[in-house]
Amino acid sequence: MKFKVPRGTQDILPSETWKWQQVEKIIDELCDLYRYKEIRTPIFEQTELFQRLVGDTTDVVQKEMYTFTDKGDRSLTLRPEGTAPVVRSFVENKMFGYPDQPVKLYYTGPMFRYERQQAGRYRQFVQFGAEAIGSADPAIDAEVIALALDVYKRAGLKHLKLVLNSLGDTECRTAHRKALVAHFGPHIGEFCADCQSRLEKNPLRILDCKVDHGHPLIASAPSLADYLNEESARYFEDVKSYLDNLGIEYEVDANLVRGLDYYNHTAFEIMSTSDGFGAITTLCGGGRYNGLAEEIGGPSAPGIGFAMSIERLLLAMEAEGKTFQEEPALDVYIVTLGEQARQPGFKLLGELRAAGIRSEMDYMDRKMKAQMKSADRLQARMVVLLGEDEVAEGVVQLKNMANGEQVKVPVAELIEKMKETLLG
Amino acid sequence: MKFKVPRGTQDILPSETWKWQQVEKIIDELCDLYRYKEIRTPIFEQTELFQRLVGDTTDVVQKEMYTFTDKGDRSLTLRPEGTAPVVRSFVENKMFGYPDQPVKLYYTGPMFRYERQQAGRYRQFVQFGAEAIGSADPAIDAEVIALALDVYKRAGLKHLKLVLNSLGDTECRTAHRKALVAHFGPHIGEFCADCQSRLEKNPLRILDCKVDHGHPLIASAPSLADYLNEESARYFEDVKSYLDNLGIEYEVDANLVRGLDYYNHTAFEIMSTSDGFGAITTLCGGGRYNGLAEEIGGPSAPGIGFAMSIERLLLAMEAEGKTFQEEPALDVYIVTLGEQARQPGFKLLGELRAAGIRSEMDYMDRKMKAQMKSADRLQARMVVLLGEDEVAEGVVQLKNMANGEQVKVPVAELIEKMKETLLG
Repeated sequence: MKFKVPRGTQDILPSETWKWQQVEKIIDELCDLYRYKEIRTPIFEQTELFQRLVGDTTDVVQKEMYTFTDKGDRSLTLRPEGTAPVVRSFVENKMFGYPDQPVKLYYTGPMFRYERQQAGRYRQFVQFGAEAIGSADPAIDAEVIALALDVYKRAGLKHLKLVLNSLGDTECRTAHRKALVAHFGPHIGEFCADCQSRLEKNPLRILDCKVDHGHPLIASAPSLADYLNEESARYFEDVKSYLDNLGIEYEVDANLVRGLDYYNHTAFEIMSTSDGFGAITTLCGGGRYNGLAEEIGGPSAPGIGFAMSIERLLLAMEAEGKTFQEEPALDVYIVTLGEQARQPGFKLLGELRAAGIRSEMDYMDRKMKAQMKSADRLQARMVVLLGEDEVAEGVVQLKNMANGEQVKVPVAELIEKMKETLLG
Repeated sequence: MKFKVPRGTQDILPSETWKWQQVEKIIDELCDLYRYKEIRTPIFEQTELFQRLVGDTTDVVQKEMYTFTDKGDRSLTLRPEGTAPVVRSFVENKMFGYPDQPVKLYYTGPMFRYERQQAGRYRQFVQFGAEAIGSADPAIDAEVIALALDVYKRAGLKHLKLVLNSLGDTECRTAHRKALVAHFGPHIGEFCADCQSRLEKNPLRILDCKVDHGHPLIASAPSLADYLNEESARYFEDVKSYLDNLGIEYEVDANLVRGLDYYNHTAFEIMSTSDGFGAITTLCGGGRYNGLAEEIGGPSAPGIGFAMSIERLLLAMEAEGKTFQEEPALDVYIVTLGEQARQPGFKLLGELRAAGIRSEMDYMDRKMKAQMKSADRLQARMVVLLGEDEVAEGVVQLKNMANGEQVKVPVAELIEKMKETLLG
């Protein structure tokens, strides 16, 4: 029997993980700069949490969740997104009582959606997300957007577009919803079965239906922008001024509605405009979710956040020809000759590592020539040669691989000598 | 409806995550020093992988797995341990063909076991593990053990004990197994139902049965040590000499068998001997698993590895009174007075962050006094005061919180001035 990685998932191999580590370093450093603190919620949650918060009528909840029953007969779901768990934790741990509000949190970790397979889409994918919960200040909307953009900028991306919309508050959305029902109702027979059931439950979802994407009634649908009340319109204006103040450019797109139910007011996406990037250009999506904490029994705690896929960030870097600095090479490879040199060579390896020198030796019982080849392949900056004569004499041969120079060094002086070479 | 974190799991909150980040930094740095490269396998695997590799008769597989069927009718299991996925990936990605052998890999991530609830045990827990696959050199066994110990040492732990055993090769294990069947067979009626079924399938498992732990026949059972053949005994001696060479102390315990089926030759555990640590003292377990790659259709690729729980590492640090250095405080808090100062204050916030200065401001529309309180609570090293007069004049008031000194600084000179204060 051959075993394979489960369909729709991938192994991230050592040739790639160092890039992931670099991205995570950027994330950790920027979140420190912006004062967002890391939170880690479990991989799974009660299924009802997502049904309630992400929304029963969304594709995510209806079609894409990994739901199962545990041995205690609880319905659990591998998290399809990060906001619902963070808000659950915010309420459960009474973070609304923390002295400093809003509570600014971030996470990086795997999410799970059972989607049709296509390039750049995985059923397990990694998201970095940030959430600021407890403030309805339009400045924090701008801060959150600036943080997302800064991650891409530090990764070297230049071809980015920020798209913005306001989804308004409950009043606006109710009015808009009525208008949508009136608009689509008489022709709903022309739409897919999902859209037909969406008409009464959540007509906004029709606008981002993957099946009926090209239907002319979608282009001519009433725009939420025309239904914004004064307060919502002013809020949106304020968010835009704060972005202006940060020198951040944006486009307003009245059709941006996002695929999850919980958003209101600010909604945004960051897209790649790089030529090489392929069909799905969204790198990051987010928005405001006032009312989400109340929905699960918490107090009022207006929030805003975003999530970005690390896989797509790396793809965008590739499309723009950006790479991280390569890993530093190996400091030293220890070549041993003969059985008598092995134990002393291994002892030396331990001492070098204890001194912080990145060291390697042979574990395959290979001849000197093969060991030297490994040292070359691993780009070792130095080689230590240790044969039975050297062991007897208490010395090693130290070879500088940059200039080929080889000197005999007493074992007691080796680390000192090496540090000189490494710094030189 | 109130939502809670699923039973047996936990949220790691910002007051704790910074410690996790420090542990992970130690792990990444040491793995770099020892030349282990990170690998990331999916959260779930085909169920059969664990049945095959961890072993059908183990508690893990029989009782503790989170197994479910996906929408494509595949049986998947949340990984209960990290070695089987890494070996699966090694074979699937043909790493046995990499020019440098052994392939040295590490991982850090969540594992899942549906265990009875008790202190310090979670159903989702995080393991760091390292695996060296492709070499049967006893020196690599010593290297792997040294790496595990070094993680604990860098975390500041002093009360550690390394326990070692050899489980021998197939020949020894077959002979020992026969002796166990002869020993327990006549009295198997006195043992639990699980042990009764273990007698024929895997009598070694009887030795670490949680139910029959106190039965006198367990103490008097034939020891594997008496069945080691010459080759296995010599291998074990070599491992011990390499450890001696690194100055690593150990105890040999002939009863150490580990709870997973795949081990042979070297098996080891690292325990905490700290008084404050409680009943379960094992911090880390590992061993050699020659034959595991063949078991899933790969070529011969002898391996060795370990896994350690991060939760237990942090508990051990607590028991020994070790802590990490606290996070650095906030660099600057921007206090704004009046509506006219908000946008310029926010602009300044963006500029300070762009200069790498860790900055924060108020998003709760609070009065000056409350903002100053926040600055105190967050231990800001400086405060920037910005009122309508300052905005008009193009200056800010810069207050050094260490000595209370306050100076008026032109906005254009602010960053320069701040860097002086932060470095001073």
